Amino acid sequence: MTNGSTPTVLPAGELHGSLGDPLMEVMNFLNEITSRYPEAISFGPGRPYEGLFEVERIGEYLAAYQRHLVEDLGRTPDEVRTLLFQYGRTNGQIHELVARALRNDEGIEAAPESLVVTVGCQEGMFLVLRALFADPSDVLLVPSPCYVGITGAARLLDLSVAHVPEGPQGTDPEVLRRTVAELRAAGKRPRAFYVVPDFANPTGTCMPVEARRRLLELAEEEDLILLEDNPYGFFTRTGTGLPTLKALDERRRVVYLGSFAKTCFPGARVGYVVADQEVEAADGRRTLLADELSKLKGMVTVNTPALSQAVIGGMLLTHDFRLREANKPAADFYQENLAVLLESLERLLPRERREAAGIGWNVPDGGFFLTLTLPVPADNALLEESAREHGVIWTPMNYFYPDSEGGRCQLRLSLSYLTPQQVAEGARRLVGLLERSCL
Amino acid sequence: MTNGSTPTVLPAGELHGSLGDPLMEVMNFLNEITSRYPEAISFGPGRPYEGLFEVERIGEYLAAYQRHLVEDLGRTPDEVRTLLFQYGRTNGQIHELVARALRNDEGIEAAPESLVVTVGCQEGMFLVLRALFADPSDVLLVPSPCYVGITGAARLLDLSVAHVPEGPQGTDPEVLRRTVAELRAAGKRPRAFYVVPDFANPTGTCMPVEARRRLLELAEEEDLILLEDNPYGFFTRTGTGLPTLKALDERRRVVYLGSFAKTCFPGARVGYVVADQEVEAADGRRTLLADELSKLKGMVTVNTPALSQAVIGGMLLTHDFRLREANKPAADFYQENLAVLLESLERLLPRERREAAGIGWNVPDGGFFLTLTLPVPADNALLEESAREHGVIWTPMNYFYPDSEGGRCQLRLSLSYLTPQQVAEGARRLVGLLERSCL
Repeated sequence: MTNGSTPTVLPAGELHGSLGDPLMEVMNFLNEITSRYPEAISFGPGRPYEGLFEVERIGEYLAAYQRHLVEDLGRTPDEVRTLLFQYGRTNGQIHELVARALRNDEGIEAAPESLVVTVGCQEGMFLVLRALFADPSDVLLVPSPCYVGITGAARLLDLSVAHVPEGPQGTDPEVLRRTVAELRAAGKRPRAFYVVPDFANPTGTCMPVEARRRLLELAEEEDLILLEDNPYGFFTRTGTGLPTLKALDERRRVVYLGSFAKTCFPGARVGYVVADQEVEAADGRRTLLADELSKLKGMVTVNTPALSQAVIGGMLLTHDFRLREANKPAADFYQENLAVLLESLERLLPRERREAAGIGWNVPDGGFFLTLTLPVPADNALLEESAREHGVIWTPMNYFYPDSEGGRCQLRLSLSYLTPQQVAEGARRLVGLLERSCL
Repeated sequence: MTNGSTPTVLPAGELHGSLGDPLMEVMNFLNEITSRYPEAISFGPGRPYEGLFEVERIGEYLAAYQRHLVEDLGRTPDEVRTLLFQYGRTNGQIHELVARALRNDEGIEAAPESLVVTVGCQEGMFLVLRALFADPSDVLLVPSPCYVGITGAARLLDLSVAHVPEGPQGTDPEVLRRTVAELRAAGKRPRAFYVVPDFANPTGTCMPVEARRRLLELAEEEDLILLEDNPYGFFTRTGTGLPTLKALDERRRVVYLGSFAKTCFPGARVGYVVADQEVEAADGRRTLLADELSKLKGMVTVNTPALSQAVIGGMLLTHDFRLREANKPAADFYQENLAVLLESLERLLPRERREAAGIGWNVPDGGFFLTLTLPVPADNALLEESAREHGVIWTPMNYFYPDSEGGRCQLRLSLSYLTPQQVAEGARRLVGLLERSCL
């Protein structure tokens, strides 16, 4: 910069409103405290455990995908080069492989052309919201508490969001029905409901099969699209798990948001959307919602990186399109962590003692998360004390309430990123905190 | 699906308005005709030439990046695994490497923390538009004709767009000034101007240095942000090329949109934004625009895939942070194609003959594109005839006019994706078409 020239300063108030929304910075305190207390045991991040990743296998997966292109699909070396290096099909090049895995793992029958391979599940959520929301009266329904990725994406697009309080078994379709009725009475149009039926983030709740069926009926009656997000379904204590909404969906009410972040690895940033709904133009021509999402994706990321698709494709091929089986070691690992956590809490805080103090927790059947309820606010001040004095970090549940109101005396414990030894020691430290603050 | 259940059909009119905008489908006819006439020589796609890509080098680049992490940065094997497999820093992990290359190749001094590594330049454009546009009165200015990626991204966000007609030397700052004045008079707020100063897509025009300086002054006077997109700057006949706006930018008026699609390879989907503007909150706290973009990126793609970043990082390391030198073979290749095209056209359509017929073309100093002007409409009907009868494909220039009005008798010839032999034969076929239609 030359002397005397004044650099541009942009007033924050002139930037898009989302940038000033506390929602977009909700995780900042957690990230900041994690970096200030690096030695603390952190029940914070919802990341998969890294001990099962192997760097040297990247080359093997890439090679497996290239073999598939040549041997199974008869591609020439020049065509393989094009597929790996050049701009590619907007909706992805591994859609057929993903469709095969979906059939094996979830019993979901999805035509490959109804799939959009996205840059992580996050891009999928973003594209679906952009496609479905057109009118200012359209409202997105989300559970409360809720994963911030969906509310954040909605905020970027200036969408209206309404909250549906969760119960101990996740969303109660009757509560959703009442919210829908209230919105209609207020002149709004409930358009879609975002839901994580299996081991929801942040609560760890799981919807019973009967509630899933009633949710699908309600969607049909109320003309709602269900946005089913399923990152944790494989990680269940009960073996096979419950059928997804999409597997039960007979009327294409469900847009399925898939992720390989937890079942393969997050760094690939590969997710997908099953968007098999038909879209009818004024002239009667029909397309798939996936085709419409393609137009949007072309203007957001053009296409999902070929290299990432190739590695994930190679993993699907290597595991014979059965990721649930391939994830058995990971599922066992998370289940051990969950068992260690529950057992530690139970041992350190037997029922009588915790009930007298007003402490409790839910007992998820799987997933990455558990909800702990305290008799005192689980706020940033307590988190700071927890990290500094007791060496243990967790996430205030209030972070996940879209209206910033609920969950003031609850916290989320994530057990995916720790070893069983760390979980046990973390539980001990956590109870140390509770002994100081509320026992 | 069970018998008797009626699948959901979504009326297209209830989806977001962008999906019904002809802008989003403008390239469909071109894509469709290319697939119907696969044997035709295509001057259509603006893709880089593939003959210089080498599949076997992917592993080498990955290894080079891993060596860098271990040997230069002292990362442990566990940390390397985390960097390659886990969720990563939102704004990227190769920002320091990119900053070094920018200094060497463009003389742009960008602090690494002012960079956002994006999923292709397209995501960069999208994030910058989302951040900068807040109020319904904010207007994005674009040249006319214009790359559809920027107008498409603006359409997704429902932004107002105004067009600034290009001259033979790209944007004339005085024309931009008049457009800005007109917008202000109409109560609008001109917020940013998108510009490709070097070998613009679609026209191939290049802004002289003096016009670049005047554009920067105008931006300062009119409080405009300049969005400089520079995918083609390396591919010049004149050796070093002209300084970018960002290299001349003394007041941080320029947000620089960088791409590795043409200088490394498109399949990586790695681009970047230099967003070194300061943002001041109401309480006086300052951040960089890059920090604000990070909040948005977290809700669109979370982070750019680690594998793609690792390969591009490895390429930067392998080429000693000098992509301009590494791209000499590619630049020579494109220049030969341009020379062959110009020489073929000149030989087949000598000045007297073409002037009598009202045919002309510009003579770009580089880049991927050339504009051909005809005395007849260069429309879909002529394109269809061209592909069917003459075996040559091109892009109607009208596709690139945001208002669908201009360029009716012009076409874009892209020479990046063909061999010199194909270019010569393509020119011969093209003149065959012209002989039938307008000579």
